[in-house]
Amino acid sequence: MTDEYEAPLSSTSDIEEGLAFAPKFDADGLVTCVATDAKSGDVLMVAHMNKDALAKTIETGEAWYFSRSRKALWKKGESSGHVQRVTEMRVDCDQDAVWIKVEQQGPGACHTGRRSCFYRAVPLGKAGAATLQFRDADKTFDPGKVYDK
Amino acid sequence: MTDEYEAPLSSTSDIEEGLAFAPKFDADGLVTCVATDAKSGDVLMVAHMNKDALAKTIETGEAWYFSRSRKALWKKGESSGHVQRVTEMRVDCDQDAVWIKVEQQGPGACHTGRRSCFYRAVPLGKAGAATLQFRDADKTFDPGKVYDK
Repeated sequence: MTDEYEAPLSSTSDIEEGLAFAPKFDADGLVTCVATDAKSGDVLMVAHMNKDALAKTIETGEAWYFSRSRKALWKKGESSGHVQRVTEMRVDCDQDAVWIKVEQQGPGACHTGRRSCFYRAVPLGKAGAATLQFRDADKTFDPGKVYDK
Repeated sequence: MTDEYEAPLSSTSDIEEGLAFAPKFDADGLVTCVATDAKSGDVLMVAHMNKDALAKTIETGEAWYFSRSRKALWKKGESSGHVQRVTEMRVDCDQDAVWIKVEQQGPGACHTGRRSCFYRAVPLGKAGAATLQFRDADKTFDPGKVYDK
């Protein structure tokens, strides 16, 4: 595996209008990745990729991430089997975020046992402390069973 | 405007299964925000919100962000008129990212003049340096005209 990309570009025009993929990693060496369901368009999760995770995702067509808490490269689904097959990857204007459309294998993406990590709504229109509302929050699998293998 | 939210919670169960909105701001005081088009599901942009941006978005139902480069609170569309009306906000399992579904006013969300910031695809299956491919990259407005007002 090679993980060499273009060095960050200095010209705004090259970054925004060019065809060289030159990911702008942050101080921790990460870009933000949004994974959406290729069919429904729902956001499944927001995570991070370092250079290796990005390279492995591009090379294999399956999503790899970098865990900031565990400080480790991980393949999505390595424990659960809930692999994400990437149908398309896009990069944003300033090249510090990628969007992947995925076919989520298995019943869900979230380690809590749900299809998406975004299973609670924040009510709008009211200032101050907010009480969340569950939305599409049914558990589609039992994380205790899936991760205790 | 009040911008008080719950302090970050210490119990994983409270964070993931609770109904208290307790955004987990990073060291810079930011959460990641993904804005998708409420109709198409396409990701329009990935940006950041500090406590004030989050509070203003929730209170007004229009998207506010925090610019890391300008270190300033900004209302999306304040220069361009391309306001984002938020139809739903969700928070993720660990409460460090929010997803907003928006009705994008005007022809686009991206400062380069496009509907979405994600107008270039990264080809999959090949290791190493990548050549991007324009995708849905037609300019829907002239940024020079829109921002030079």
